[in-house]
Amino acid sequence: MPLITVHLIENVFSPEDKVEMITKLTDTMVAIEGEAMRNVTWVKIEEVPEGQWGIGGTALTAGLVDAMKAG
Amino acid sequence: MPLITVHLIENVFSPEDKVEMITKLTDTMVAIEGEAMRNVTWVKIEEVPEGQWGIGGTALTAGLVDAMKAG
Amino acid sequence: MPLITVHLIENVFSPEDKVEMITKLTDTMVAIEGEAMRNVTWVKIEEVPEGQWGIGGTALTAGLVDAMKAG
Amino acid sequence: MPLITVHLIENVFSPEDKVEMITKLTDTMVAIEGEAMRNVTWVKIEEVPEGQWGIGGTALTAGLVDAMKAG
Amino acid sequence: MPLITVHLIENVFSPEDKVEMITKLTDTMVAIEGEAMRNVTWVKIEEVPEGQWGIGGTALTAGLVDAMKAG
Amino acid sequence: MPLITVHLIENVFSPEDKVEMITKLTDTMVAIEGEAMRNVTWVKIEEVPEGQWGIGGTALTAGLVDAMKAG
Repeated sequence: MPLITVHLIENVFSPEDKVEMITKLTDTMVAIEGEAMRNVTWVKIEEVPEGQWGIGGTALTAGLVDAMKAG
Repeated sequence: MPLITVHLIENVFSPEDKVEMITKLTDTMVAIEGEAMRNVTWVKIEEVPEGQWGIGGTALTAGLVDAMKAG
Repeated sequence: MPLITVHLIENVFSPEDKVEMITKLTDTMVAIEGEAMRNVTWVKIEEVPEGQWGIGGTALTAGLVDAMKAG
Repeated sequence: MPLITVHLIENVFSPEDKVEMITKLTDTMVAIEGEAMRNVTWVKIEEVPEGQWGIGGTALTAGLVDAMKAG
Repeated sequence: MPLITVHLIENVFSPEDKVEMITKLTDTMVAIEGEAMRNVTWVKIEEVPEGQWGIGGTALTAGLVDAMKAG
Repeated sequence: MPLITVHLIENVFSPEDKVEMITKLTDTMVAIEGEAMRNVTWVKIEEVPEGQWGIGGTALTAGLVDAMKAG
């Protein structure tokens, strides 16, 4: 039953990052709920195109997010 | 008012399958709620790319889903 | 994998209606995708309180929806 | 905290329309909640492909929506 | 077709605030898309209980949000 | 930007479990994306009432989920 949906901006994370998110978010959830729930723990990742996600009214690009990641 | 959202994995269902989902899920819903509600019954289908949907921590491909469909 | 989410307004449908939605929407989906997919076909129903769903800017009450249902 | 998600059909709105939606929906929300909330007000736009959004069981194309917009 | 979903934390906004959100977000959207689209412009507001929305790992209460609103 | 939404069935997890989900899912995500992204990493938990979530057409109760958790 637990369903985890992750929304990201496109072109920020690599396919490897996304596989890691699925694996590790599932493991984190299973550590809380119990191993017996693993098979009904779903994680799906949905990406929003650059320019279609605004914070405070400013539409983000992958470049802006990369700059945020750099700190 | 009823809003039905269907999440699928990309490359598993054909355009014809998706039209059939819209038509038949609407009909099913209208059979319960009454014909007068048809025009405010919406169905939208959102597809998640292969590799971005995990069950139990395993990211699904269309090939894996096809194997599941084959039983 | 198929995930069906139904959004309704609270106080319009009975518990029996909602069980019927879960059963029949699942059956409709399985008829399209194949019986082997039944166990990974999920339906969840989320209800929005009266007054928190607007159509054309008018917030709906259960009474307004009942009037719509009456045609 | 306020999160606004806008679902549209693809190929109906231009990139400029979508930037305008992000800017103006944020401004509208901030006018209600107060300027101090601007930085935690998020707007994301998700587009559904043509043919994957049905109203009353009819799958919409961008052409159909354009005809609706023309009134 | 445009569907706007607003997620808020419970106990922060009054019923009047929420009606104002429905009215003004609809008007903002209609100003961009054209008056002919008003009847298919939907806004729904979903509230998340206090303690179930985290920013940076901190679960928010209505009190914390009120403090943020105060600037 | 990363937004994590967790859907659960009501009456299965305690308030402490839910705080742990917010904290640990955030930490897991930040470990992948980098510490600089912590403040824009949001987790929200939405609960679906018992009887409104079906797997394979069977509506789940908290009791059924507890039995699943027991393995």
